[in-house]
Amino acid sequence: MTQNRTLGELYAEVQLFYARQMQQLDAGKLEAYAATFTEDAEFSHTPGREPARTRDGILADLQDFHKRFEDDPMQRRHWFNMIDLEPQPDGSIVSTFYALIVKTRPGAAPEIAPSCVVHDVLVRQDGDLLNKSRTVEYDSVR
Amino acid sequence: MTQNRTLGELYAEVQLFYARQMQQLDAGKLEAYAATFTEDAEFSHTPGREPARTRDGILADLQDFHKRFEDDPMQRRHWFNMIDLEPQPDGSIVSTFYALIVKTRPGAAPEIAPSCVVHDVLVRQDGDLLNKSRTVEYDSVR
Amino acid sequence: MTQNRTLGELYAEVQLFYARQMQQLDAGKLEAYAATFTEDAEFSHTPGREPARTRDGILADLQDFHKRFEDDPMQRRHWFNMIDLEPQPDGSIVSTFYALIVKTRPGAAPEIAPSCVVHDVLVRQDGDLLNKSRTVEYDSVR
Repeated sequence: MTQNRTLGELYAEVQLFYARQMQQLDAGKLEAYAATFTEDAEFSHTPGREPARTRDGILADLQDFHKRFEDDPMQRRHWFNMIDLEPQPDGSIVSTFYALIVKTRPGAAPEIAPSCVVHDVLVRQDGDLLNKSRTVEYDSVR
Repeated sequence: MTQNRTLGELYAEVQLFYARQMQQLDAGKLEAYAATFTEDAEFSHTPGREPARTRDGILADLQDFHKRFEDDPMQRRHWFNMIDLEPQPDGSIVSTFYALIVKTRPGAAPEIAPSCVVHDVLVRQDGDLLNKSRTVEYDSVR
Repeated sequence: MTQNRTLGELYAEVQLFYARQMQQLDAGKLEAYAATFTEDAEFSHTPGREPARTRDGILADLQDFHKRFEDDPMQRRHWFNMIDLEPQPDGSIVSTFYALIVKTRPGAAPEIAPSCVVHDVLVRQDGDLLNKSRTVEYDSVR
């Protein structure tokens, strides 16, 4: 149960979960990334785009979204920081944090954009954390 | 007592404190930000500007300083990282870390400046961490 | 033993180790930085450059490498984030994380480059963490 973990244990667990989750996405492992969401999850990653729903729907949406990167030798790195965690009475965890995407193309300096605030609801299944939902809010489109 | 906390508990507690403190500042909640300082705190945030003293003085100084942002639709995000903590015999914690300010204006890529080193003294009151002092050192003005 | 530490304790310990290690390097304390490696360590920090070996070799290599900064009033800040830790059966820790170098010259905005993935093997000696190896992979040179 999340409620019985100390803050130190929970905070490290969430940081490690995010590190692995986003290193997988940045390595193009879309199935592994989709598997970090619950079966009934909702993921809203781009303003103006309909949220993806269910793990299969999230994977399909990511495969579609990532087509734009196919001919672009860009390496993306997602940076998450300033993580605020609020454990809920039902055992879920509301997580609100800052994100930057670092994009590097061959021979060029990194481009760092956009700046985002991410709103997650994390739940525990079989002892592991999963995203029940993720909503990405962009600073530059408000 | 800080002395009796493990490093894991203390480190997570400081990261969470900074996340909430700076998310409040970046949301323009100046009173909530000022409330993260002790009543007798000292805050030096800008080289060449007299440090603000006392919680009321810090709030007044912030309200004055933030006037420059009133007509500017810029979203600021404070990123803190590489946090070194040194618990002191008196129960206070010397915290030294890196900071970047991410500034996004509508339709533009984020501007990331300045790069800073921040020197905090944190104390515990009624179980919660507060800033007894904060001194921000800018990399670009040395 | 690393195996007996909780994730919360280990994660905080590694974050603190990196904060102190890199604050020392960014302050130009090359001997203190070299002392965070084991006597038989290997450090590969720049693609195309032969890895430095042994603590003395790492120090000599750093002193040589840092000559390029002697006439350059640039302040470097190493940012590490998204740290994935994998404790190994032999007590060592495989650590894989993202890094950015923030470079500030007087009167200029920070330049943030390159974006890297760092592969560390950490070991414990006399209770303290040390780098047994570090390999820095640059995003922009692939």
